[in-house]
Amino acid sequence: MKTVHVHGERDVRVQEAPPPSLLRGPEASGRDAIVRVVAACVCGSDLWTYRGFRAPAHDRGMGHEFVGVVEEVGHAVRTVRPGDFVVAPFYVADGTCAVCRAGFSAHCLHGGLWGADIAGEGGSGGTQAEHVRVPLADGTLCVVPPGSTGEDLLPGLLALSDVMGTGHHAAVSGGVRPGSTVVVVGDGAVGLCAVIAARRLGAERIVAMSRHADRQALAVDLGATDVVAERGEEGIARVKDLFDGIGPDVALECVGSIEAMQQSMRTVRPGGDVGFVGVPVTGGEVSVRTMFGTNVGVRGGMATVRDYMDELLPEVLSGAIEPGRVFDVQLPLDDAAEGYRLMDERKAVKVMLRP
Amino acid sequence: MKTVHVHGERDVRVQEAPPPSLLRGPEASGRDAIVRVVAACVCGSDLWTYRGFRAPAHDRGMGHEFVGVVEEVGHAVRTVRPGDFVVAPFYVADGTCAVCRAGFSAHCLHGGLWGADIAGEGGSGGTQAEHVRVPLADGTLCVVPPGSTGEDLLPGLLALSDVMGTGHHAAVSGGVRPGSTVVVVGDGAVGLCAVIAARRLGAERIVAMSRHADRQALAVDLGATDVVAERGEEGIARVKDLFDGIGPDVALECVGSIEAMQQSMRTVRPGGDVGFVGVPVTGGEVSVRTMFGTNVGVRGGMATVRDYMDELLPEVLSGAIEPGRVFDVQLPLDDAAEGYRLMDERKAVKVMLRP
Repeated sequence: MKTVHVHGERDVRVQEAPPPSLLRGPEASGRDAIVRVVAACVCGSDLWTYRGFRAPAHDRGMGHEFVGVVEEVGHAVRTVRPGDFVVAPFYVADGTCAVCRAGFSAHCLHGGLWGADIAGEGGSGGTQAEHVRVPLADGTLCVVPPGSTGEDLLPGLLALSDVMGTGHHAAVSGGVRPGSTVVVVGDGAVGLCAVIAARRLGAERIVAMSRHADRQALAVDLGATDVVAERGEEGIARVKDLFDGIGPDVALECVGSIEAMQQSMRTVRPGGDVGFVGVPVTGGEVSVRTMFGTNVGVRGGMATVRDYMDELLPEVLSGAIEPGRVFDVQLPLDDAAEGYRLMDERKAVKVMLRP
Repeated sequence: MKTVHVHGERDVRVQEAPPPSLLRGPEASGRDAIVRVVAACVCGSDLWTYRGFRAPAHDRGMGHEFVGVVEEVGHAVRTVRPGDFVVAPFYVADGTCAVCRAGFSAHCLHGGLWGADIAGEGGSGGTQAEHVRVPLADGTLCVVPPGSTGEDLLPGLLALSDVMGTGHHAAVSGGVRPGSTVVVVGDGAVGLCAVIAARRLGAERIVAMSRHADRQALAVDLGATDVVAERGEEGIARVKDLFDGIGPDVALECVGSIEAMQQSMRTVRPGGDVGFVGVPVTGGEVSVRTMFGTNVGVRGGMATVRDYMDELLPEVLSGAIEPGRVFDVQLPLDDAAEGYRLMDERKAVKVMLRP
């Protein structure tokens, strides 16, 4: 089958690999499934690998988002059947451990990220591929009701795999509630989904920080009430000015740099919250004294998107939310390298890949 | 009048000072009040100054907690009258600025800490004294209903000045709600009040970390369901074991060291919260990567105790909560030095000083 591998900085290639199969034999738990990928996508976080920030980046399967059709399941799988159309989160989880029960399946005690070896359950490849073996299929996969998987709904369903749930996680982590005032830092797919999430949770005002006219327009369409194009000190001052000079209640950090984190912490009012979901690839720290002296809370991290699917899926299906609009380019899987290039150069917000 | 000043490391002295008076003249806003102090106390955070961690520590008035009787008010004061029995928070606030309206009067745009100069409103001394001039009296002082200020209620009322509101702030910042599981790090007066607050907010289990038999007993009396005496790695493991091996929902950090912060972050489950109120005198930072990789939120800081008084005062008056029990020593103001010594040596939890 075809699969996308990274070979080095800005070098991704579509190549052949043997198709995955269910684990067999006496050791196999029978909890896995084989899914034919209908659509996958390129994530902002894939770009870190693409840009060489993350090692090892040699000949590794790429991708962690997909929707598809189940072809085969192991003998112990209970909730997923061949023929089901499924959405996969960007990680594998059993859905039953103590951490999953607490609502944080992204940190499942027995799961892991795509591409990693799952203890006792075998490994998985990247999901930018024609087929994927899904360990712990019952806990991982979300089944979409039959008859609701037309082409028009595909982008929205695929967004549930990561970006929509991640934007929602930023908003939930930042404590957005009816009446909240919010600034969204980052105008990528996750930032745009954070706008959707903030609006959905009842935010009264939502400021999108963006310098790109097309993204500004989309943000406004998705629910932003204000746009601020300035950056740095000027941007902070502009946003504070919109809210009595003290700043909004909540900042949603959807970038992943320490600068964006600091900007977020400085933009909100005393006692405000920062909900963050940007992957902090370059690290960084926040000062306890600064937090103490401002009462600004910081909460967020790896979005527990599987846990949000039951809540968000019906709204995607009804059209109440339209996270699929963040996809502005669709390419055949064969053209994956072009998809990476477009996102790297910020010529695309989010690229869908079709095997 | 008598007042307590610090002169150097472990050197506090009761000395004479001119009694304060209302600001007069055409520049005066008339928003101040003179209060006769009925009871003041020594705070854990005063010990940082006492121990020489905080400069400048030379000949400065000490104390930031008190209750007393209003003797005189400026011409613009509206809600406070001579004869009123009042509780003062550990800061001065106008109660009307944008930050106060957002519920964070501890960061009032026009207020400040006791001992600081309040712009346009003059300064104040320390509150371990016979009299205190209170700038911005309407916003700062909380009036206690007449007839409810007997000797038996005095400790509880005085606790509202700082420690009870601060323990409550830890619990609120950590998001404690009905059913929460909580660990309290720190067995000083604030930690003990955090136990009260967590119980009051409906926590199902509350683990007090303490090695001192008397504080353990008091914590249990105030609502702790479990006590863990171990510290460091062993303490973390013991607490995690109590909660499915993954830790409780919330840690309340009531110490102020970076070690206590890290212990708190490591003790809670993935997706848990740390509510912190310990003054980070020695500084320190938390890693964004660690937060991202655990989804543990950190929120807290200077407790906005004035904002909590309306909610907590009736419960102190009714006896529903008994934060006054953290006072285990009462001394005349003349013996303030002895009070500091007892707290410094951890021979007293909290010392009340009576002018």
